[in-house]
Amino acid sequence: MTSLSPYADMSPVAQAAYRARAAAADIAPLPRAAKDDALLAIADALEVRTKEIVEANAEDIAKARAAGTSESIIDRLTLTPERVRAIASDVRDVVALPDPVGEVVRGSTLPNGIDLRQVRVPLGVVGIIYEARPNVTVDAAALCLKSGNAVLLRGSSSAYHSNTALVRVLRDAVGGAGLPADAIQLVPGESRDSVRELMRARGLVDVLIPRGGASLIRTVVEESTVPVIETGTGNCHVYVDADADLDMAVEILINSKAQRPSVCNAAETLLVHADIAEAFLPRALDALAEAGVTVHGDEHVQTYGEKSHATVLPATPEDWETEYLSYDIAAAVVDSLDKAVEHIRLWTSGHTEAIVTTSQQAARRFTQLVDSTTVAVNASTRFTDGGQFGFGAEIGISTQKLHARGPMGLPELTSTKYIVTGDGHTR
Amino acid sequence: MTSLSPYADMSPVAQAAYRARAAAADIAPLPRAAKDDALLAIADALEVRTKEIVEANAEDIAKARAAGTSESIIDRLTLTPERVRAIASDVRDVVALPDPVGEVVRGSTLPNGIDLRQVRVPLGVVGIIYEARPNVTVDAAALCLKSGNAVLLRGSSSAYHSNTALVRVLRDAVGGAGLPADAIQLVPGESRDSVRELMRARGLVDVLIPRGGASLIRTVVEESTVPVIETGTGNCHVYVDADADLDMAVEILINSKAQRPSVCNAAETLLVHADIAEAFLPRALDALAEAGVTVHGDEHVQTYGEKSHATVLPATPEDWETEYLSYDIAAAVVDSLDKAVEHIRLWTSGHTEAIVTTSQQAARRFTQLVDSTTVAVNASTRFTDGGQFGFGAEIGISTQKLHARGPMGLPELTSTKYIVTGDGHTR
Repeated sequence: MTSLSPYADMSPVAQAAYRARAAAADIAPLPRAAKDDALLAIADALEVRTKEIVEANAEDIAKARAAGTSESIIDRLTLTPERVRAIASDVRDVVALPDPVGEVVRGSTLPNGIDLRQVRVPLGVVGIIYEARPNVTVDAAALCLKSGNAVLLRGSSSAYHSNTALVRVLRDAVGGAGLPADAIQLVPGESRDSVRELMRARGLVDVLIPRGGASLIRTVVEESTVPVIETGTGNCHVYVDADADLDMAVEILINSKAQRPSVCNAAETLLVHADIAEAFLPRALDALAEAGVTVHGDEHVQTYGEKSHATVLPATPEDWETEYLSYDIAAAVVDSLDKAVEHIRLWTSGHTEAIVTTSQQAARRFTQLVDSTTVAVNASTRFTDGGQFGFGAEIGISTQKLHARGPMGLPELTSTKYIVTGDGHTR
Repeated sequence: MTSLSPYADMSPVAQAAYRARAAAADIAPLPRAAKDDALLAIADALEVRTKEIVEANAEDIAKARAAGTSESIIDRLTLTPERVRAIASDVRDVVALPDPVGEVVRGSTLPNGIDLRQVRVPLGVVGIIYEARPNVTVDAAALCLKSGNAVLLRGSSSAYHSNTALVRVLRDAVGGAGLPADAIQLVPGESRDSVRELMRARGLVDVLIPRGGASLIRTVVEESTVPVIETGTGNCHVYVDADADLDMAVEILINSKAQRPSVCNAAETLLVHADIAEAFLPRALDALAEAGVTVHGDEHVQTYGEKSHATVLPATPEDWETEYLSYDIAAAVVDSLDKAVEHIRLWTSGHTEAIVTTSQQAARRFTQLVDSTTVAVNASTRFTDGGQFGFGAEIGISTQKLHARGPMGLPELTSTKYIVTGDGHTR
């Protein structure tokens, strides 16, 4: 029997992917205890080797400062001993999560006596393409390891030294625990070419998860032949129905918009039923102004601007589709719940939409007609989050419909296979 | 409030997709009864208008004959009154299947009192690109309608008249039942350009499912920016373990290979443990010869060819990766179960692999280590099928790991959304 290796003349990226595949095959059948031991070893190693990590991080920060990077990005890049301890603690939280692998999703005995079971299995090799924050390196590796997957990490070049140090610590710990270190790898090469190669590694890499800005995600979605899970863009809406409790509506609006405007589950557009506009909008605009939010309103909203302390800029069509990620919100008055739904369908990125209403019928119709990862009734858009949903850590929030939708926890990092058991059954 | 239509200068394909999106929004919230009524109307209409369908089909057949098409392909293309009745009967079977939409997949009350439910929803617009057989037109439309999806059908040009007539009947029936006819559409244009446009319609089409030959599927997988579910290629293996029951092994081998060699769950490679080769291979080769199967064997297998009635051609590396879909099988002797797994991992398309063994440990190790859609223990590879699994009709067999793996029934044509219900909850 002859065997041909399809990897005879491998590039560094293909080599990494091929080694990841081999490691994936080794860790897929491991019992939970073996994976948890490796995760505990990772957490310990992060604490023991904090100095090495922080020193590597200092190189990235010096480089970023020299390049005139903004302080907010430098803050996201920075690793302090406290932050490394927090990352180690997050890894221990992953240890506590149940292992999805081996879960029997469906099972039955067929009429012919065959036993059929659908069982969760790891996806195999998961590629993560991400920006700035080096904590993602450890979070993603821990979640992939727990779910029996090998991971190829492609962080940004701005975090190169930090990621290199972190992955060295992770690999040493995994190897020390008796598992294949190749289950965790940094994708070699700092250029865009290595990203491109990763996106074309169909058959070697089972899924790519881009985490970062809209342009990164768009590039990966359009150019990848490897299946992609799209994450993150959130043009979220808060719709205040004619039958809303106004106090509740103001609280939910301000929380959705201003509690943390830079994240994907923050609200970006307010829609108000015309019947309640006069009672609600002056209060809402004042509250938004107090929270430091600039309103980009349609003509109807603008008329209330003059009666409140708020600045209301005229909204352009771009405002309806913008994910501000800042203290800005678009606002429009709609004639009915169905008009609100129509607006949302046209402009949403499909992340999270909330309705505030006391009407059971309105809540039911809104949740039926709005097709986003999450529809909230009388609750802030900010709840769309793996931690809030009780899934433990999350690898991202999928805004696509295939495979996973909404916050992705460990089960979303698995596939399934069928096991058919017979006694010599034939057709 | 201004609204911008992104579809101002639409091509015919984009127009179809846009109309499908609108129809999808209308049918997504429909209760089961409304969808079942439309399906029954379809079944009735197919029977009432059989003559119109068969006449249109005759045009395709005449064209195919004139082009010198092989009789086996003409047979797959042919619609007789009996076949149309059978297709109508398949539609009534879909009526009997449970509606996946609205199923609560997970649900809990979070510590803060929020009610969280994950609910099945339609995918939206499903594109099917398929070859020859016009029955797929009706099967796919029925499954998509039942699961609340709109469908864009892109059949082969060889079935153009048949598909046009069928879709006309389907649309009339759906419209007559009060549902939007645009939920079922033939993709306009017979050229490859319309396929290409469909593959780039990300945002309009939610998923593409190619059904057909390997080259069609490869093209769609590589060129589509719309998420794809890869179906069908089946390089399936039967591994006869050292501890196999030999009678059972022969039966499973012959059933897997020869019961219907042209389908994706037929076996294409036989692997035999060296310890049992002398006892098993002569019998297996005789049985294969009797079933009309040509064996492509490695050197070890060839030595048994001389001692049996079988023709054993020398296997080349290509044989290990070939999906013959004919009365041919590749065969090799392996030194251990782990070597069998290694061979499978290297060459399989990941569809179905079977082990024949009396050893519980061997069965357990094989099912753990082999990562294909289906792993069969003491059962024919031919059981990997939606009907056999009790899923009712199937839209295809996914050989990818994301979203769906193995036979795809109605639940695989859905996504989910989260519904978060609070009493004014904020973070």
